[in-house]
Amino acid sequence: MKSHTVYRTFNTGRRREFVRITEDVQQAVDDSGVSEGLALVSAMHITAGVWVNDDEPGIQADALEWLDKLAPATWQEPPNDVARELLPDGGDYRHHRGGEDNGDAHLKNLLVHHQVILPVTDGRLDLGPWQAVFYCEFDGQRNKRLVIKVLGD
Amino acid sequence: MKSHTVYRTFNTGRRREFVRITEDVQQAVDDSGVSEGLALVSAMHITAGVWVNDDEPGIQADALEWLDKLAPATWQEPPNDVARELLPDGGDYRHHRGGEDNGDAHLKNLLVHHQVILPVTDGRLDLGPWQAVFYCEFDGQRNKRLVIKVLGD
Amino acid sequence: MKSHTVYRTFNTGRRREFVRITEDVQQAVDDSGVSEGLALVSAMHITAGVWVNDDEPGIQADALEWLDKLAPATWQEPPNDVARELLPDGGDYRHHRGGEDNGDAHLKNLLVHHQVILPVTDGRLDLGPWQAVFYCEFDGQRNKRLVIKVLGD
Repeated sequence: MKSHTVYRTFNTGRRREFVRITEDVQQAVDDSGVSEGLALVSAMHITAGVWVNDDEPGIQADALEWLDKLAPATWQEPPNDVARELLPDGGDYRHHRGGEDNGDAHLKNLLVHHQVILPVTDGRLDLGPWQAVFYCEFDGQRNKRLVIKVLGD
Repeated sequence: MKSHTVYRTFNTGRRREFVRITEDVQQAVDDSGVSEGLALVSAMHITAGVWVNDDEPGIQADALEWLDKLAPATWQEPPNDVARELLPDGGDYRHHRGGEDNGDAHLKNLLVHHQVILPVTDGRLDLGPWQAVFYCEFDGQRNKRLVIKVLGD
Repeated sequence: MKSHTVYRTFNTGRRREFVRITEDVQQAVDDSGVSEGLALVSAMHITAGVWVNDDEPGIQADALEWLDKLAPATWQEPPNDVARELLPDGGDYRHHRGGEDNGDAHLKNLLVHHQVILPVTDGRLDLGPWQAVFYCEFDGQRNKRLVIKVLGD
């Protein structure tokens, strides 16, 4: 069995950002020499996710607006009454007692999930026509790491 | 290492539908000859998910009703006020500017997740007594593909 | 390829509980002899999840409070109006017609997801500095199983 591990570091200009990484993962597959296997793509932080979806800016803007309602931040005004009620009772995350302000990013990470597994067939990521891979930063502007691990023959 | 890849195409009669695929995945494991390994089951579209849950119609109806509140569609009336507020600001998904009407299905896909990994032990899917595998269609009535990839020895 | 499978049974004192299992998974990796590979950690029940997050009690309390709003239980008063509207129409889960009262736990399982895959590099779980692994019980006080499957070389 062949194995190849690549780490990538992100430092996004904005606090929240979607970064396309399909080509990085394919490059890791190429470098692994794996023809049949899989590629694990996993954020190494707990305030970032990995998402397979269409590379269409409207979807990403829709998703971020919606995530801000379902898992509201405290460093901005809640966007509506539903978001206000989905904030912690009392208004602030318990997690913030340690000085953090990213409680919402932990919940967004839960919703988006922090990893995907991509099948590798004939040396290529075996994706559907609209499937692209994104690193989803929810608390950026600092170094955050991602691991790509390719396994197979 | 053995590897076996199967594609399955769904064209559901209804727009949304849960299709049991446990036996399809077991068949792929049988055909692979893998005794110890895993089976990746992954939708190749971004408006469908894969779910491991009880094969009980009530759960599926509960889940769909609930997903329609959390990630509301625009082609039907929002079921209540929470759903109305979880719609995009302005009322329509940005993704629909390209002519689509399935913005909600992308968000349902995010919630359900588009893939699972099933352990294979002694040639059998190593599932708990109530675990069944479902393909979850959120924008059907057209051909959609799923990949099953079995790896192991 | 090496393969090693471990089952662990939980019987939590409380109905809902987060149990740290990072060390159990590392032990399974040690016992497997795998140096490069992956570890699948998967709940064998449909009312429990597996979560990778910070081992910080505030986050866990935040997450449980929030999950009780998004996927409300019927065996306690809904915590606010949003939770009330996210209950099934009519007020009770269809799944409860069979005598169960854990409909909410199936939806919490959907949100948290029932499994993670951990990369194994140089014989160690290849986790970020704040990543810990938790078994998330949403309907405990009875025996529930988890499978850990380590694959690699």
